[in-house]
Amino acid sequence: MAKVRLFIDHPLAAGQPVPLDGAQSHYLSGVMRLPAGTLIEVFNGRDGAWSARIAAAAKRGGSLDVLAQVAPQRNPPDLWLCFAPIKKARTDFIVEKATEMGAARILPVQTDHTNAERIRQDRLQAHAIEAAEQCLGTFVPPVGDLLPLARLLDGWDASRRILWADEAMAGPAETLAGLPHGPWAILIGPEGGFSDAERARLASLPFVSRISLGPRILRADTAAVAALALWQASLGDWAGNPG
Amino acid sequence: MAKVRLFIDHPLAAGQPVPLDGAQSHYLSGVMRLPAGTLIEVFNGRDGAWSARIAAAAKRGGSLDVLAQVAPQRNPPDLWLCFAPIKKARTDFIVEKATEMGAARILPVQTDHTNAERIRQDRLQAHAIEAAEQCLGTFVPPVGDLLPLARLLDGWDASRRILWADEAMAGPAETLAGLPHGPWAILIGPEGGFSDAERARLASLPFVSRISLGPRILRADTAAVAALALWQASLGDWAGNPG
Repeated sequence: MAKVRLFIDHPLAAGQPVPLDGAQSHYLSGVMRLPAGTLIEVFNGRDGAWSARIAAAAKRGGSLDVLAQVAPQRNPPDLWLCFAPIKKARTDFIVEKATEMGAARILPVQTDHTNAERIRQDRLQAHAIEAAEQCLGTFVPPVGDLLPLARLLDGWDASRRILWADEAMAGPAETLAGLPHGPWAILIGPEGGFSDAERARLASLPFVSRISLGPRILRADTAAVAALALWQASLGDWAGNPG
Repeated sequence: MAKVRLFIDHPLAAGQPVPLDGAQSHYLSGVMRLPAGTLIEVFNGRDGAWSARIAAAAKRGGSLDVLAQVAPQRNPPDLWLCFAPIKKARTDFIVEKATEMGAARILPVQTDHTNAERIRQDRLQAHAIEAAEQCLGTFVPPVGDLLPLARLLDGWDASRRILWADEAMAGPAETLAGLPHGPWAILIGPEGGFSDAERARLASLPFVSRISLGPRILRADTAAVAALALWQASLGDWAGNPG
């Protein structure tokens, strides 16, 4: 059976006692039914993965004894994923997949054709944590709050390039091979595509590169995973580039 | 509002009346509330997409009048996706994503670490049809029945190469750039990975190429989309190769 992994927002070091809040304690004792003394794995997003022993786990809280580091901290490359939220389950899915695929930051953006007017940032962040727990990650990408695309672009640092997955760009995919290394963000549109005004603005920005994701129409969640895969394989840590 | 699209397993030609079965007729009249005379789009997986007018739609059945072809038939490249079924929702998801990403055939395989002993082939096939309907496709990949991996490999035609997404292969991804064109299949393992015996056999086969999908552990559904994206961009119709 796979070892239970828990994200703990607390400094981790050998011999360090770590408090558990009620939810964490309930998860270990009530849901997973682990008795005191059980070894689990913990990470805090900064200090790698550590083995820890359950010292106490009761309804209102408990504590762990941190034992030893079992994996170094591993951060993803400097890649953001900006996406227009869609239906709830598929938005959850994008956050889960972006975490697995090694996005360093996840930014929900409101576009002209985005129906969502708000998101549950806390719920999406919890999904990113759960994905990191399940996929043996040591890093949890921060999930931003919903931001209008225009505002995002107004404040954009031009040294971070944008890979725009343009669903209106038919034909073969542009190769990513010639694109420069460095900080990037992938931008995925909503199911209805970007508006004409948004398209014109994106096309005019010198730090934006357009790619096509093939001749078939992809759902936004599929497009997110596909674009992350192409970027990671060409410019990211799948290609052996440093994280 | 997007036009309703319906997969109809019937020859399509201008002026041709096409019968609707009870489920299709109920979908149009009962679920979508479309009156007779409404224009919809239909495809049969072979003859492209056609506009059609609802002639009659009642509880037990109905009929369409096919008007004109609106899109040519577009088949995906000769790429199969072989995957070990996982939990129901994620298996459904893999079939949906493989259809969007342009797999020509979907083959569920039973591996040593696969928990599923059977699949609902008809339900998975319905998912592939629904994905093609929603994503403006004209092709529906056939979904096979569950086949043990050993049997699949026993009968394998060596002219079809296998791209094995090997979760145990750490480190940077092998580039797909040098791999030959032609018929391929992507092989994705179960969450527990392939057994030692399976790994030894796969490694010994001359038509198998291993790739890594980066340093993070991916769920099987994520790995399927990522591997399909890399193949399509390098050897498939995203790279401008003929379908």
